[in-house]
Amino acid sequence: MLEALREEVLQANLELVRHGLVLYTFGNASGILRAEGLVVIKPSGVPYEKMTPEDLVVTDLDGRVVEGSLRPSSDLPTHLALYRAFPTAGGVVHTHSTYATAWAQARREIPCFGTTHADYFRGGVPVTDDLAAEEIQSDYEWNTGQAIVRRFAGCDPLEIPAVLVAGHGPFTWGRSATEAAHNAVILEELARTALYSLEVRSDAQPLAGVHRDKHFFRKHGPKATYGQK
Amino acid sequence: MLEALREEVLQANLELVRHGLVLYTFGNASGILRAEGLVVIKPSGVPYEKMTPEDLVVTDLDGRVVEGSLRPSSDLPTHLALYRAFPTAGGVVHTHSTYATAWAQARREIPCFGTTHADYFRGGVPVTDDLAAEEIQSDYEWNTGQAIVRRFAGCDPLEIPAVLVAGHGPFTWGRSATEAAHNAVILEELARTALYSLEVRSDAQPLAGVHRDKHFFRKHGPKATYGQK
Amino acid sequence: MLEALREEVLQANLELVRHGLVLYTFGNASGILRAEGLVVIKPSGVPYEKMTPEDLVVTDLDGRVVEGSLRPSSDLPTHLALYRAFPTAGGVVHTHSTYATAWAQARREIPCFGTTHADYFRGGVPVTDDLAAEEIQSDYEWNTGQAIVRRFAGCDPLEIPAVLVAGHGPFTWGRSATEAAHNAVILEELARTALYSLEVRSDAQPLAGVHRDKHFFRKHGPKATYGQK
Amino acid sequence: MLEALREEVLQANLELVRHGLVLYTFGNASGILRAEGLVVIKPSGVPYEKMTPEDLVVTDLDGRVVEGSLRPSSDLPTHLALYRAFPTAGGVVHTHSTYATAWAQARREIPCFGTTHADYFRGGVPVTDDLAAEEIQSDYEWNTGQAIVRRFAGCDPLEIPAVLVAGHGPFTWGRSATEAAHNAVILEELARTALYSLEVRSDAQPLAGVHRDKHFFRKHGPKATYGQK
Repeated sequence: MLEALREEVLQANLELVRHGLVLYTFGNASGILRAEGLVVIKPSGVPYEKMTPEDLVVTDLDGRVVEGSLRPSSDLPTHLALYRAFPTAGGVVHTHSTYATAWAQARREIPCFGTTHADYFRGGVPVTDDLAAEEIQSDYEWNTGQAIVRRFAGCDPLEIPAVLVAGHGPFTWGRSATEAAHNAVILEELARTALYSLEVRSDAQPLAGVHRDKHFFRKHGPKATYGQK
Repeated sequence: MLEALREEVLQANLELVRHGLVLYTFGNASGILRAEGLVVIKPSGVPYEKMTPEDLVVTDLDGRVVEGSLRPSSDLPTHLALYRAFPTAGGVVHTHSTYATAWAQARREIPCFGTTHADYFRGGVPVTDDLAAEEIQSDYEWNTGQAIVRRFAGCDPLEIPAVLVAGHGPFTWGRSATEAAHNAVILEELARTALYSLEVRSDAQPLAGVHRDKHFFRKHGPKATYGQK
Repeated sequence: MLEALREEVLQANLELVRHGLVLYTFGNASGILRAEGLVVIKPSGVPYEKMTPEDLVVTDLDGRVVEGSLRPSSDLPTHLALYRAFPTAGGVVHTHSTYATAWAQARREIPCFGTTHADYFRGGVPVTDDLAAEEIQSDYEWNTGQAIVRRFAGCDPLEIPAVLVAGHGPFTWGRSATEAAHNAVILEELARTALYSLEVRSDAQPLAGVHRDKHFFRKHGPKATYGQK
Repeated sequence: MLEALREEVLQANLELVRHGLVLYTFGNASGILRAEGLVVIKPSGVPYEKMTPEDLVVTDLDGRVVEGSLRPSSDLPTHLALYRAFPTAGGVVHTHSTYATAWAQARREIPCFGTTHADYFRGGVPVTDDLAAEEIQSDYEWNTGQAIVRRFAGCDPLEIPAVLVAGHGPFTWGRSATEAAHNAVILEELARTALYSLEVRSDAQPLAGVHRDKHFFRKHGPKATYGQK
């Protein structure tokens, strides 16, 4: 199973490359085996084109390396914070994809302007608060995760499986690493389309709740009708 | 003839991929055999790169599957509403292409700013009204079609073979599936150029009617002079 | 020599494709043999990927077809008007390239915001006046050329080898078809960069004349120092 | 060593092509052997696709050609001014890349809006003052370098290894030609994202200093933790 997860996490990382979400070694995807408490994550600063399943790093939920000779992504503690707080998350992805990062830098929630958005996210994609100076100075990456977790207090993270970290960029998640990467690709497209909608009309309005939920639940939950059975 | 239409509809779907109008399984194209009352449409949620003519679904005008083992696109009822109301439509295409969707989300008609637009559409590309809550809650996709049909009351749908569904995205049509896909590609380019024109000058003005009609009728109708005989 | 010009004009047309300036059959490039009074131009509505040198159409300066079985581009009379008025023009190109067309539709001159612009155009790229209704209704394409010629009264067309036709799109020219196509590619890049400059600062200012001329004459005229020899 | 530098400088030039930073023959990269006082630079106006290591030009720090039969890039004197003033610079790159040029043309510093920026540049990317008319009229390229050097008085050029020359475009540098090209690619992405951030929110705010420095020093200096070992 760990081998299968290594392969899936590698493919999730490469999916970010295929869709133009990463430049050089930016970005990272991980996946988790819940029963074993093992996380598989991209190594730090290794070029995507040379990456093999063996280069991926396996850690426990405290971040101790269990397998692999490379150092894990420096964002590992943020991934771990999300796995600990969101028990339904099977995969986490972080990118600096252009449009989502632009919204994160502007500290503005991406409104749910249309049905494409509502097919994947049941509402706007929120922005975290800024970290306090002391949260930046020590345990920065872990504290980044805590800022995300605080922002999702009382929300189902699978209904809005994405966040914008203020002044930084997006994190997405999903039931698997594959789904987390898929959500990162979709988020980038939504961030782009939402910016253009604002340019077409600066007072563009979000979709009505009933319309949003119609689309979200066409694709998610027990009454989903999209796709092949 | 049904085999030929399957192949044409497959190619119309792939034309959307070739021009970057669709992400993952977004979008769908269909075509109709008027005499037989048969519609060929993309299956729901099947990756484009694996799609074969046999995967396409054949239905009647009530949406009953006549041939094919897969489920048709969830947007089938919208296509059927258009085929019923627009007797000259031989093909229908729906996408969430980025720029046209941005205008649809902003609920703003795409003005006919120039001759490129006028070569294909004899005026602005209109936006539907929002659906009422009860139109969303039941028969949503059929009601989406009805909103389009209402918007075109008194218009020749072949003079403006495209619409923006409010908060959703574009539908296009044409005398064939090929032409509907072609119009979807053109619409996306027009939506993009029109946005940039607004950014260059926020009070950009539409083309004069005489200029618009000169271009439209250079390419359409009995006096067309464009192309090879 | 006519064979060489056919090949050059074909390559000039394909250069537009290689740089993403044309969609489907949009756009056209031509070249002229001044001594013979013969113009070679793209045929109307023929896909670029199938075009051969033999498909190009040879006409005289009155637009009479001298060689070739296809119809010439419908924009031929505009090309002819430019060849007649600009004796130094050896090639003409017309496109609906996205950014230049956006400026043409907004009827706004592209300011000379920087040295990239000044390397190719000694000042802003001007916009024509709108055509009168009667100029549109008869001899439209010829009158389009006349509107360009009027706009360049008193200017050296090789110092600013490009124009935006109001509500339509750009024409470029040069000492050869190759140079005209090159200028079309550069113009599109300048139109894009100038739009972004306006978005960065809506009151962006043109380059000082001395700076503009320094760059223009580094690459043009007897004191040019750019390139090899 | 000169052969190795030729190959590195060629690859640095090609890196600009691979990332879409240059059109035609725009742009140039160089590298220096400090001990020998030799600079290797791209020749002027030679197409990238035909360039070989032998085409590169070797000069001394006064710009005298030591090896090579082609003329060096016309921007050579700017490179030399930077090598003379910035002793830690091992490579210099100049491009007219679209987004960075747009900011240079607008004469607006690129603010440090986020952590992607702070990973590479410890603060905003500054703009030079305009050159005086006499600085343009003689020794223009050398004076361009002096304007950059004046702008960096009192700054560590490796903490902000990039500048926008007003009305012109970006120069970047680094400890090697490879690093200078890498910084040019990153700068273009930052310029693009920063523009979008402004479009999302016109009063977007720079990252707090403590946050900026956390990221910069994660990747630079003795306490860097990014990457492998």
